[in-house]
Amino acid sequence: MQAIDINCDLGESFGVYRLGEDDLIMPYITSANIACGYHAGDPVVMHATVELACRHRVAVGAHPGFPDLMGFGRRAMSLSPGEVRACVLYQLGALEAMARAHATRLCHVKAHGALYNLAAVDLTLAKALAEAVARFDATLIFVALAGSCLVQAGSWAGLQVAQEVFADRGYRDDGSLVPRGEAGALLQSPIEAAGRVRALVTSGVLHTVGGAELPVQAHTLCVHGDTPGAAAFARNLHQELRALAVPVLPLRQVVMS
Amino acid sequence: MQAIDINCDLGESFGVYRLGEDDLIMPYITSANIACGYHAGDPVVMHATVELACRHRVAVGAHPGFPDLMGFGRRAMSLSPGEVRACVLYQLGALEAMARAHATRLCHVKAHGALYNLAAVDLTLAKALAEAVARFDATLIFVALAGSCLVQAGSWAGLQVAQEVFADRGYRDDGSLVPRGEAGALLQSPIEAAGRVRALVTSGVLHTVGGAELPVQAHTLCVHGDTPGAAAFARNLHQELRALAVPVLPLRQVVMS
Amino acid sequence: MQAIDINCDLGESFGVYRLGEDDLIMPYITSANIACGYHAGDPVVMHATVELACRHRVAVGAHPGFPDLMGFGRRAMSLSPGEVRACVLYQLGALEAMARAHATRLCHVKAHGALYNLAAVDLTLAKALAEAVARFDATLIFVALAGSCLVQAGSWAGLQVAQEVFADRGYRDDGSLVPRGEAGALLQSPIEAAGRVRALVTSGVLHTVGGAELPVQAHTLCVHGDTPGAAAFARNLHQELRALAVPVLPLRQVVMS
Amino acid sequence: MQAIDINCDLGESFGVYRLGEDDLIMPYITSANIACGYHAGDPVVMHATVELACRHRVAVGAHPGFPDLMGFGRRAMSLSPGEVRACVLYQLGALEAMARAHATRLCHVKAHGALYNLAAVDLTLAKALAEAVARFDATLIFVALAGSCLVQAGSWAGLQVAQEVFADRGYRDDGSLVPRGEAGALLQSPIEAAGRVRALVTSGVLHTVGGAELPVQAHTLCVHGDTPGAAAFARNLHQELRALAVPVLPLRQVVMS
Repeated sequence: MQAIDINCDLGESFGVYRLGEDDLIMPYITSANIACGYHAGDPVVMHATVELACRHRVAVGAHPGFPDLMGFGRRAMSLSPGEVRACVLYQLGALEAMARAHATRLCHVKAHGALYNLAAVDLTLAKALAEAVARFDATLIFVALAGSCLVQAGSWAGLQVAQEVFADRGYRDDGSLVPRGEAGALLQSPIEAAGRVRALVTSGVLHTVGGAELPVQAHTLCVHGDTPGAAAFARNLHQELRALAVPVLPLRQVVMS
Repeated sequence: MQAIDINCDLGESFGVYRLGEDDLIMPYITSANIACGYHAGDPVVMHATVELACRHRVAVGAHPGFPDLMGFGRRAMSLSPGEVRACVLYQLGALEAMARAHATRLCHVKAHGALYNLAAVDLTLAKALAEAVARFDATLIFVALAGSCLVQAGSWAGLQVAQEVFADRGYRDDGSLVPRGEAGALLQSPIEAAGRVRALVTSGVLHTVGGAELPVQAHTLCVHGDTPGAAAFARNLHQELRALAVPVLPLRQVVMS
Repeated sequence: MQAIDINCDLGESFGVYRLGEDDLIMPYITSANIACGYHAGDPVVMHATVELACRHRVAVGAHPGFPDLMGFGRRAMSLSPGEVRACVLYQLGALEAMARAHATRLCHVKAHGALYNLAAVDLTLAKALAEAVARFDATLIFVALAGSCLVQAGSWAGLQVAQEVFADRGYRDDGSLVPRGEAGALLQSPIEAAGRVRALVTSGVLHTVGGAELPVQAHTLCVHGDTPGAAAFARNLHQELRALAVPVLPLRQVVMS
Repeated sequence: MQAIDINCDLGESFGVYRLGEDDLIMPYITSANIACGYHAGDPVVMHATVELACRHRVAVGAHPGFPDLMGFGRRAMSLSPGEVRACVLYQLGALEAMARAHATRLCHVKAHGALYNLAAVDLTLAKALAEAVARFDATLIFVALAGSCLVQAGSWAGLQVAQEVFADRGYRDDGSLVPRGEAGALLQSPIEAAGRVRALVTSGVLHTVGGAELPVQAHTLCVHGDTPGAAAFARNLHQELRALAVPVLPLRQVVMS
């Protein structure tokens, strides 16, 4: 049975503003995607979040986004490929400095919000993103929405690609996410989520809301950190996977296997 | 005769805004202090400026400042030592990413504006700054106002310290700069500046506006890049130093000697 | 017996970040100091907060701060008087637009955080602040720390001044606040706070932690909105004042009486 | 013969960064569109630019843009209608405060960059923009690209609409601008521009690069302030129009006539 990693977006507080339950979620994940100060996070928050991840022996990854704190990086912005490359390099370096100050290094990169979503369907943008990562450090793992342009771009740039499935989101028969607000968009039950994950890692198929089974190779599961009950969901998912004998391992080990 | 380095603050454009004549000054300097996006600079500008420095074989250094673009980092801000450490780490990493993308590395760090000026007289702040540099990369050279708290803090943090003298600014008998606006604040003539530099490197003394000779060990001269005629000043200073047989060398070589 | 107003800093959320329990506190206050996008708040938050205040018939006031979202306006910054004037004008206008869109107008101005604290002891800064308010709208009430430079500056600018006492903070014998972190800094009990307020409005004296009675004319009480239990404190204070027959009235009525 | 107004985007400096030749252009225009701190401009710049406009008796208008200083508001951003309304209200109010401090008032509003361009072809966005203006001050003149959704939205919101033609840009036969970079995108000669304007105001037709004559009712001409030679272009255009006996009048008078 293939192993799987669990990742979560963390370090999204800013200044006096608190977001997410980072300390409660850390015990149940293997990869932390840490905001880099553009869509969220600030130097003090980044520093503290890397420290927290190290304490929990969770792999540190960068979570770069658009320069739009007011919109939390969720608003599409039309940056040129050159702007994307530079903005991503900037954020990777900024987080690497925090990692270095804690005697660790970045392990992976996963883009945030609108940058991730746009790049998933825009190969030019995805390549700009992947190129920045490869130029920064060609050994970083590139986290990509399973089956999207991000996967293609990561390979093109010579990066190891980790395909991602959202643990708590419903999928449509074409492999896209059920939009938030529609029925089936969110899986409420960690048991249901865990069952779907088991099918993923044992049979390599993703169950859709329509009842179809999509062939998907998943390396990492995303759990959300900023929703109410996020920590409980993560804990339960983790337990269910253990009960199902699905190995939960760091991303590096998963993609290597 | 001791050699000397010439440094200049560069990469201080932002978005559509242009500042300084970076391309004209590069031929006459040996160290570029590149803004890191807090007081000036943005990822695209930083990327281009590192590229420009590499083309001119000028050493790349970081020029971190306060998070105050509106005030160009010239307004004092009361950051805690922890905030300073984190903000400096952030900026160092961001610029290092640009250097890495050009297959080079940072060579030195020089703080900007109010951060530099406050740290020059506040040992706690200076130590926070130096500590961030040392934790990021203990081989970086720490540029410090000659005789200031910055020198002390750099040594305390175990960094190599390069003492800096401003080529175009007048000094008072107590070693402080003649405040801008007062007579003698600015040396207009590169010849006068070069003469003063020769005294610095041959006799180790700095001529003040009052006629005194202060004992100073100078490793690097700062020329300003954002004043009218900056490139001409740098060119003339460079020529005068050559005429005086003062070796102008990269900072690493100067501090090693 | 003199009436008193109760004010609270509100609208300090930003983007996805929530701060304070604005909707829970509104029923118990008469003046809302709404953040203007510099230290906190964004246009959407400002718009919603004005709407909320209108629904509760709470007077809308501006709460301008330093341009430092990362530091929540709590870090001292050395702005020139001209910069302060312009920054305050900017923020007043921005909030006035939100008021106008809800068919209401600004009633008062109270500076935030470091701007307020610095201006309380720096007459030049206080005058710059008051001058901006007067130039914007000379009928606005200027909220000032009782006995501070802000009172003096407001009068100098020809503004009506409302002297403020912090309901939940301890005062020293010299009229200054007991610093946070020291014993007596925070009054835990709304009953104790209400008793102190009664002495204020009946006898015009402020009880200090040292047992002294300072003569103070107080027009408005500040309750904090971002501390745990803030809404409960405000509700209890409001009830205690009613029980003590202290009239709680809008600021305009208080300063007019 | 119909009169015409000449408008220019001004006040686009920021902090230490200078952009445009505002003082040289002021003598030749009748309407100043002043940046409001989101895509460009800061409180000090806004204050000074309003003062400059008043000295030249040029009508003051707001030039709101997307919150994207790094991209100068030229990058498309997907803001919701509610976000657009709030962001525009914010900027209008901020500039109105500067006007009020100079005993004047806003006369018109013209959106900037990507906000203007997107709203020109997106009626929902254009309505959000126009609605914000109408709620702020229903007597403001709404400057709209001739023939675009902006015209429609302004009328829908009950605003007086001023149709705008770009003096120095070539138009295609379908009424759209020749994209920058293509032949004919920029009219180099003020004489050619003036001739085209004369056709506009005498015959109500716009000459296209294809030789067609589009029926267009133009109230205002845009001259650019940030291109080299902008002031000379504006001066020459102004002179040519006088020579052609085309009345150059303030926007209010033009739309009223």
